[in-house]
Amino acid sequence: MSEIKVIKGGITAAKGFKAAYTEAGVKYPNRKDMAMVYSETPCVSAGTFTSNVVKAACVQWDMKIVKSDKPMHGVVVNTGIANACTGQEGFDACEATAKAMSDKLGIPVDSIAVGSTGVIGMQLPVDRLVAGVNAMCDKLDSSIENGTNASIAIMTTDTVNKEYAVQFELGGHTVTLGGMSKGSGMIHPNMCTMLSFVTTDVAISHDLLQKALKTVVVDTYNMISVDGDMSTNDSLMILANGDAGNEEITEMNDDYNTFVGVLFTICKEMARMLAGDGEGATALFTAYVKNADTKDNARTLAKSVICSSLTKAMIYGHDANFGRILCALGYSGVIFDPEKITLSIESKAGSVLLFEKGEPQNFDEEYATKVLSEEEVIAVVDMNTGSEEATAWGCDLTYDYVKINADYRS
Amino acid sequence: MSEIKVIKGGITAAKGFKAAYTEAGVKYPNRKDMAMVYSETPCVSAGTFTSNVVKAACVQWDMKIVKSDKPMHGVVVNTGIANACTGQEGFDACEATAKAMSDKLGIPVDSIAVGSTGVIGMQLPVDRLVAGVNAMCDKLDSSIENGTNASIAIMTTDTVNKEYAVQFELGGHTVTLGGMSKGSGMIHPNMCTMLSFVTTDVAISHDLLQKALKTVVVDTYNMISVDGDMSTNDSLMILANGDAGNEEITEMNDDYNTFVGVLFTICKEMARMLAGDGEGATALFTAYVKNADTKDNARTLAKSVICSSLTKAMIYGHDANFGRILCALGYSGVIFDPEKITLSIESKAGSVLLFEKGEPQNFDEEYATKVLSEEEVIAVVDMNTGSEEATAWGCDLTYDYVKINADYRS
Repeated sequence: MSEIKVIKGGITAAKGFKAAYTEAGVKYPNRKDMAMVYSETPCVSAGTFTSNVVKAACVQWDMKIVKSDKPMHGVVVNTGIANACTGQEGFDACEATAKAMSDKLGIPVDSIAVGSTGVIGMQLPVDRLVAGVNAMCDKLDSSIENGTNASIAIMTTDTVNKEYAVQFELGGHTVTLGGMSKGSGMIHPNMCTMLSFVTTDVAISHDLLQKALKTVVVDTYNMISVDGDMSTNDSLMILANGDAGNEEITEMNDDYNTFVGVLFTICKEMARMLAGDGEGATALFTAYVKNADTKDNARTLAKSVICSSLTKAMIYGHDANFGRILCALGYSGVIFDPEKITLSIESKAGSVLLFEKGEPQNFDEEYATKVLSEEEVIAVVDMNTGSEEATAWGCDLTYDYVKINADYRS
Repeated sequence: MSEIKVIKGGITAAKGFKAAYTEAGVKYPNRKDMAMVYSETPCVSAGTFTSNVVKAACVQWDMKIVKSDKPMHGVVVNTGIANACTGQEGFDACEATAKAMSDKLGIPVDSIAVGSTGVIGMQLPVDRLVAGVNAMCDKLDSSIENGTNASIAIMTTDTVNKEYAVQFELGGHTVTLGGMSKGSGMIHPNMCTMLSFVTTDVAISHDLLQKALKTVVVDTYNMISVDGDMSTNDSLMILANGDAGNEEITEMNDDYNTFVGVLFTICKEMARMLAGDGEGATALFTAYVKNADTKDNARTLAKSVICSSLTKAMIYGHDANFGRILCALGYSGVIFDPEKITLSIESKAGSVLLFEKGEPQNFDEEYATKVLSEEEVIAVVDMNTGSEEATAWGCDLTYDYVKINADYRS
């Protein structure tokens, strides 16, 4: 596979994609709260969405669009209000928003996806959204700055902007993928996470784009959790406009495999950013499970470790209370022999062996605390039963998580 | 069914049961940290234990004893160290503890259960445990005070003592049940909760005692959660010595049904006490799901609501952010139509309708905050699809939960 080059920018990095942002006053004044992504060239699209039975109106709107193979042109996103549990009025708001963009740019209503994030059970102020859309259509631009500002406009309790872009060669053509994500609380995706958008200029068929996204999501977005709460709005969408000029990918050939590899990279990096910026988090908490009997079991075990309130509090306390990790493995639903497990904690500061084949180990507490005090802490679990591995990403549980969520709506 | 009378006391309330406690210095000095329960009359026993694959040594010891139908005489419990993930040394510690009680009281080693709670992955100081057992054997007493002190001796991060006792009539005989429980964090029982012991003087067969306990656990201990972490040590055991003199219950007759009803009462009250005293909790958070299509779905929905970090933080913040409750219902795994759901919040202070058949409702925020500020807050969810119901109990998520668990081991 050709080299993957990380480049500056995000959602406007790929050829032919423009972005815009505005302060529409959806819920709060003086705050960037709407973003738009647009490609004049029609795009094929793919998406994965929350498996929560309670799906936001916008998720239902987008699912319909992505399922059809009609060409897509763009996305409009608002923060502040999630447009979930809003009944018929919520669906009407989706349509009104898309229609505003459709009228202004002369593109079909059903070529526009809508995304919302914020408080559940509150109605969107449609007039302000429509005004926001009109303002943004006039400011669409392919600059890196506009991409970054669009990404900033979709942040809610996020503390850092999350965008990423990569380039690679495909049959002599430079192909670019860029993405933006938001999400900090209510993150425990099953199909994908809060809101994530990827644009690319690769030429690929609708079916294979969807297939590639589904493949990649399993070990990226589906392996992160902030708080175990799977949102009503989780959406990951990708738009591909073909402007790179490569020979269209229409079968699962080498080009397809190369593209999947690059898509995995960008999705993994964005997923890690989401986990590390979990509400109130001070550390990225990674669980790496190796030598498991099956891939699915490795995933389940790794995710159980990063989802435990007690392991998360232990990371926050920089305390090598490793029994909590074994406990979380034990209730994951996977059957295994505890006598075979070996466990260590690793970070930039070093590595500490805590438990070896069923026996607790003596270790230097002070050194362990040092290892646990880094920005990323990795629990390495050796199941010693097979050859499958998986990685999951979460964050620590802090006072600030509670603070943010006890106060969030007010 | 005859009236169920709540009486004073706990583990020593039933005829023929004695208790003792001591400061054995298991992990900390000057702290009651061991308890003993004893019946001279041999007992039939039943128990349910954690379904965590990683089971503490004492859980494995007790499971063997309860499974056999050999007579039982008592239980020894220590706090401070959980004796989980301790390899062969852990099993040896169980045996040494039981043997000390066996030698001193002249009862079989395998008539004694052992219970441990505390830090995982640390070895028990066997000498101090044996000394503690010897000291307690000399102080066994059937007073209410001794029962209460035994219950206090098994507390860890608990803030209130949890004991309960009831009496009822069975064929002209007064039958008593008394219990003690501990548990505050790492509570998310699947088979049962942290440590709970019930003694009774009812005469009943081993098989029917186990059947009664299994029946009752499903809608009591299995319906509580503090933090979603299922412990390695969860144990609920019941000893019945027959001293009440009732005709032995050997079939599923009226007497059996009466007994199951009373056992349900004591288990439900103890389970509620455990949930309400969750680590750092300021409120008992109850979810009552009604008119569901199946009993199992009602249970799953209720439990999903009380397990959500976001609903728990919302209760702490006294904030009627009801979308989080709908969100938690939605990812529970149960398939339903959100358009049918009606949701209100109730407490001693009143009731607020938040969502009715798919539409968010206008409500008085100030009044809602008042309703949410009580010691017990109930989310009432009407699924409007059937006639099954279930109740689950949890607590709010607070700064103190994080504090306790970031510092717990040190």
